[in-house]
Amino acid sequence: MTSEVRYLDPSLSIDERVADLLERMTLEEKIGQLAGSYVGVLDEGLHDVDDVIDEIDEYHIGAVAPFGWGGSPNESVDEAVDAARRLQQHAVEETRLGIPLLFASDAIHGHAYIKEATVFPNALGAAATWSPDLIERTAEITAAELRATGAAQNYSPTCDVVRDPRWGRTGETFGESPYLVGQLAASKVRGYQGDDLEGDSVLATAKHFPAYGVPARGEDAAPVDVSSHTLRNVLLPPFEDALDEDVGSVMPCYNSVDGEPAHGSSRYLTDLLREELEFDGVVVSDWNGIAQLHEEHRTAGTPLEAARQTHSAGLDIGSVAGGEHAGHVQELVEQGALSEEVIEASAERVLRAKFALGLFEDPYPDDDAAEALGTPDHLNVARETVRKSLTLLQNEEDLLPLEDADEVFVTGPNADAIVHQNGGWSCNADEGVPGTTILEGIADVADETTVTYEPGSGINAPVDIDAAAERAAEADVAVIALGEDWYLHEFGPSAETDGETGEFPTRNELSLPDAQRDLVDAVSATGTPVVAVLVTGRPLAIEELADDVPAILMAYYPGRVGGGMIAKVLFGQAEPGGRLPISMPRSAADLPTYFNYLPHPHPIGSDEHPSSYDPLFEFGHGLSYTTLEYEAIDLSDDAIAPGEDVTVRVTVANTGDRHGSEVVQAFGRDEFSSVVTPVRELWAFERVELEPGERTTVELRIDPDELGLFDRSNDGRRDDGRLQLIVEDRTFDLEARPQRE
Amino acid sequence: MTSEVRYLDPSLSIDERVADLLERMTLEEKIGQLAGSYVGVLDEGLHDVDDVIDEIDEYHIGAVAPFGWGGSPNESVDEAVDAARRLQQHAVEETRLGIPLLFASDAIHGHAYIKEATVFPNALGAAATWSPDLIERTAEITAAELRATGAAQNYSPTCDVVRDPRWGRTGETFGESPYLVGQLAASKVRGYQGDDLEGDSVLATAKHFPAYGVPARGEDAAPVDVSSHTLRNVLLPPFEDALDEDVGSVMPCYNSVDGEPAHGSSRYLTDLLREELEFDGVVVSDWNGIAQLHEEHRTAGTPLEAARQTHSAGLDIGSVAGGEHAGHVQELVEQGALSEEVIEASAERVLRAKFALGLFEDPYPDDDAAEALGTPDHLNVARETVRKSLTLLQNEEDLLPLEDADEVFVTGPNADAIVHQNGGWSCNADEGVPGTTILEGIADVADETTVTYEPGSGINAPVDIDAAAERAAEADVAVIALGEDWYLHEFGPSAETDGETGEFPTRNELSLPDAQRDLVDAVSATGTPVVAVLVTGRPLAIEELADDVPAILMAYYPGRVGGGMIAKVLFGQAEPGGRLPISMPRSAADLPTYFNYLPHPHPIGSDEHPSSYDPLFEFGHGLSYTTLEYEAIDLSDDAIAPGEDVTVRVTVANTGDRHGSEVVQAFGRDEFSSVVTPVRELWAFERVELEPGERTTVELRIDPDELGLFDRSNDGRRDDGRLQLIVEDRTFDLEARPQRE
Repeated sequence: MTSEVRYLDPSLSIDERVADLLERMTLEEKIGQLAGSYVGVLDEGLHDVDDVIDEIDEYHIGAVAPFGWGGSPNESVDEAVDAARRLQQHAVEETRLGIPLLFASDAIHGHAYIKEATVFPNALGAAATWSPDLIERTAEITAAELRATGAAQNYSPTCDVVRDPRWGRTGETFGESPYLVGQLAASKVRGYQGDDLEGDSVLATAKHFPAYGVPARGEDAAPVDVSSHTLRNVLLPPFEDALDEDVGSVMPCYNSVDGEPAHGSSRYLTDLLREELEFDGVVVSDWNGIAQLHEEHRTAGTPLEAARQTHSAGLDIGSVAGGEHAGHVQELVEQGALSEEVIEASAERVLRAKFALGLFEDPYPDDDAAEALGTPDHLNVARETVRKSLTLLQNEEDLLPLEDADEVFVTGPNADAIVHQNGGWSCNADEGVPGTTILEGIADVADETTVTYEPGSGINAPVDIDAAAERAAEADVAVIALGEDWYLHEFGPSAETDGETGEFPTRNELSLPDAQRDLVDAVSATGTPVVAVLVTGRPLAIEELADDVPAILMAYYPGRVGGGMIAKVLFGQAEPGGRLPISMPRSAADLPTYFNYLPHPHPIGSDEHPSSYDPLFEFGHGLSYTTLEYEAIDLSDDAIAPGEDVTVRVTVANTGDRHGSEVVQAFGRDEFSSVVTPVRELWAFERVELEPGERTTVELRIDPDELGLFDRSNDGRRDDGRLQLIVEDRTFDLEARPQRE
Repeated sequence: MTSEVRYLDPSLSIDERVADLLERMTLEEKIGQLAGSYVGVLDEGLHDVDDVIDEIDEYHIGAVAPFGWGGSPNESVDEAVDAARRLQQHAVEETRLGIPLLFASDAIHGHAYIKEATVFPNALGAAATWSPDLIERTAEITAAELRATGAAQNYSPTCDVVRDPRWGRTGETFGESPYLVGQLAASKVRGYQGDDLEGDSVLATAKHFPAYGVPARGEDAAPVDVSSHTLRNVLLPPFEDALDEDVGSVMPCYNSVDGEPAHGSSRYLTDLLREELEFDGVVVSDWNGIAQLHEEHRTAGTPLEAARQTHSAGLDIGSVAGGEHAGHVQELVEQGALSEEVIEASAERVLRAKFALGLFEDPYPDDDAAEALGTPDHLNVARETVRKSLTLLQNEEDLLPLEDADEVFVTGPNADAIVHQNGGWSCNADEGVPGTTILEGIADVADETTVTYEPGSGINAPVDIDAAAERAAEADVAVIALGEDWYLHEFGPSAETDGETGEFPTRNELSLPDAQRDLVDAVSATGTPVVAVLVTGRPLAIEELADDVPAILMAYYPGRVGGGMIAKVLFGQAEPGGRLPISMPRSAADLPTYFNYLPHPHPIGSDEHPSSYDPLFEFGHGLSYTTLEYEAIDLSDDAIAPGEDVTVRVTVANTGDRHGSEVVQAFGRDEFSSVVTPVRELWAFERVELEPGERTTVELRIDPDELGLFDRSNDGRRDDGRLQLIVEDRTFDLEARPQRE
């Protein structure tokens, strides 16, 4: 490296290096930075490393997804590192300017498409921990494991608030509270990006902007048909939280929003994102988001027009659009349909990110990457996350923990299914996926207990329910692991899943399939007490199950260490620490069922209306093995004003004889407001862990600006009047004192 | 009457008369014109004629709802006329200026709260006729019957497009096509208002502005949380059609829309309605719409503030808000919180309507009102409406018509239930409601057939299903009349209905209750062929029923003559002429299911997605007893441009041996468009009636301006590109030639 090649000189500022490099680049090389490719099987056979190398040579491709989703053959750390190294060596050593590739991955809950990696609970499980610091730590670990394999961008976190669990990606979100989603999304950005992207950091990607979580009918990628009020007050706030953490990348949603597909909308990608929200990072397309403008949204008459629309709208990188996309952009510039200034501005943003990530200095995977993945320390963090996520929904007559069972019978489709337990966005190879299933975990933990097992049922088809019932009858307690299998997006029968179209799990069926219900019925009928463990990406409608069995533990997709921790919780060696980050509806016919609904009239008498919010288990719900008491709740002030926090001091005591945890939740509402505001909204929370007899005082900060309490309406009207704050069973009045302009 | 009292001089213009009258009025008298009262039982016992007279004296109340909904005791024509006459005499003869009262009624499908009146099918049934001229005639009849009893305003038509049949008011709408809803709403306005409100006309009321038909969760009056795109392209167009017919009155919706309750929104009532859409008539509140701003939406801190908000926003009359409302308005004017100009402008609009309606010349009910209601001519129009509305959903092996049955068994909760058959917004007295039930109709029509009957089941509880099965086994065919009972709004147990909260019919249960399904099962199990007749306000989810029985006739709420016409159709004396104006979903979990959905991406392969639109019976569906053939379909042009219609000529032949009807339906779509547009939309239709062997050619006019084909986006972008027109099984390309500015 010589100092005369200024862009290779790490002592210079990024500004200087980018300027120098841009000056040396041809238009085609700049365009190449706006096109990404992939290794894997999408539409037409395997697109392998050599194919990508050809694209680098022909189109100067600047980004690649070398492993992860998309049918990549690189599922082991050695394969992944080998692919990344070959590609990067080609880019760095065999191209004119040696610009390193940006490797991106969908490491949604750990770098989980690599078998050896740490697999964390899916986002909904992570949200059930209500632990921003812990989630930040899981993101740091994911970043380190990604970076070890060469990847420097993660298509995470999901900032979408979800309101309809029919949506197949519900489990990828942090749930239904804008505040909780925003807090956890911000934690993930901090964890991924570290301090200014230095060290083992990766570029975080806030997705899917501006809104994906409320698709029509819960159908994946269907239009998000919400009011500006909901967009502004419910769906955008978590993105703003991620932007406040300087998230380096944003991904538009596949959906159209207010009639405009986000991938082609300058209103969302430029006016809103860059101008109003002042984002200056990289906008990357979702996988097929550009072609969809032509093929599915039908707002572009040709693929070429789709490419024009997306870059005019503000997109920087067509993530896996490949050489074809680079070709389109070149054609558009030649036609004068896209300006060189637009290309230059996007290329500058991409290069800035590559410099910030240190890729010019450290472009390669680690030589000892294998040692960096799934380390004992990392897996312990995963275990802590699982413990704090497992949510005890129901526990009649304190059936749990199972302390004096001599014989435990284990059954159900998810009792011994590591791939289901890891859930979507993870390796679903037939074999070689490491981890501990629930059955294995129980066998480990219950060492003085006889453990018997029959599968009983698959996800949809019975195996041998009679055999299960026979075994159950002999046992002291039965553990049935129910729920969903591995899926992505809209469920269904890709090569990667077991189901058939329309088969559970599917959009319009939130109830457990007959086979699983029959298994529950048969086992329950033996009289042996039953614990149901739900391994599922999203809330299911389980009113019948709740009637039939005394204890239900919601496990989400707990990941590879999940089986061990579930066993510990069942046997009282750990406490279930989760609280629901989303409401569990009684039935699909009640949807959407979310706690923070807007009040509305009941024209013919409210006694004729079943409550708008009547879930089976409500947002924030989760039982403990111990007893907890709220000893004191005090507010620092009885009024609140812009720029002035109010602090809520809450003293909680563990009055039981076991370790226990609590998530102190502060809800608020406007008593009267200039526009309609929710009946209640989560304003603050804090998790506490308490030994028997211990008490602790937490301080919850109510920040009116962060919560937008004085900025509800679109036309600048400000609210005054009264607010109320609700903690546990107490309600406090808060006078609002808006500053008048 | 002396000519010096200029406002009483009918030879002067309305402008002159209004100006003269306003000059004579005190502020209090003007305010009185903005307050309406009612006779009936709402919250606190009976509010009777004398109470209203007191309000006239104290507050100069200008409008009254003297009968109809709200628990009015005036259910017979004589009672109604007596009440109206007493009130009007007081206003005209006992007040200083003698300003006549404006009597309003909820004559939604005929003046049906008066026992003797003509009851037409509910709006959804009316929409199934696809017959604007016929619906106009039903509105003329309703206007005549209203005016005979003294009423001069009807709170109809409903212009709301519905997309979720969980909503209890689905049956009050014309369904899910903006075009069909708009055509029929316009017909009703023409029918109600006649030529310039002369003769037997009443003021029509377009409701519920701007949007009520898409409440969250299908819950009555819940927020309408839709995009501007949907508001503009789906929900507003029918209102624009009503406004094009100079509808005299508009009623805001109870709902909040984009965070703003319509009753308090100047954005909707002034900016949109008066300024953009140029409405200059009277805006009347829905019953409790003002108080809800304080009590339920909580956007007004006090009832007084609610009154201020609504008049500032653009409301003219607080419909049943009474003297209390007048008092609030007076207080607000005294405080300076409402200007006298606002009051004056509203009073002027109200008085203008009263003059236009001829109330100063003809304020009283007819002396022979009884002879004007439910005349043979009127009932014949009702019969024609029923015939054209009855929709044959399924008819396996041509079970219908029932021509050679010796014994017909009739059963089911709606076989002999005139109140259910009339449906909501009609008199539901225990006795004295005239009409022919299905059982009575069959007994009349099938005069050479033995007719047996067992109720079998009530709506929710079985009566004697075994007895029904026994009888069924003996018969050649069984007719089971299933469905819903009488309800309003959000179902449930008002004093006026039979159900309990949460009992069917209810929002989150679109399936038939167990009792009705058990009855179907038991009767079907006998092997006797079964015809199911659905008497129901809205589409139910009847996939199971469709599997179990060969023939299903959708009857909506057909009204008092419905039983007779259903019998004629069952026995082949008339043809079922209806076509569904709304999709019938397979299950509540599929909702919303509407034919004109927006296309969208399928990120992981479209074969994994069940179709977005997979109803049990689709929009436009309806079978005939004859066979029909489309012999020719031709377009007048292969291109379309603003201001230039295209005509579709369609020749249809009746190739069978029975009278038959067809509704020719022309759907269109943008192949590509500047914003996302529906996969298909109804663009034109025409009903034809054909004798055996007859053929006819209809011309459907495609009006690009009426359909907004070049005006999709909010930002003035215009579409060019290609359109497609679909009639029956043929698709035509249409080149779009937008005029460029």
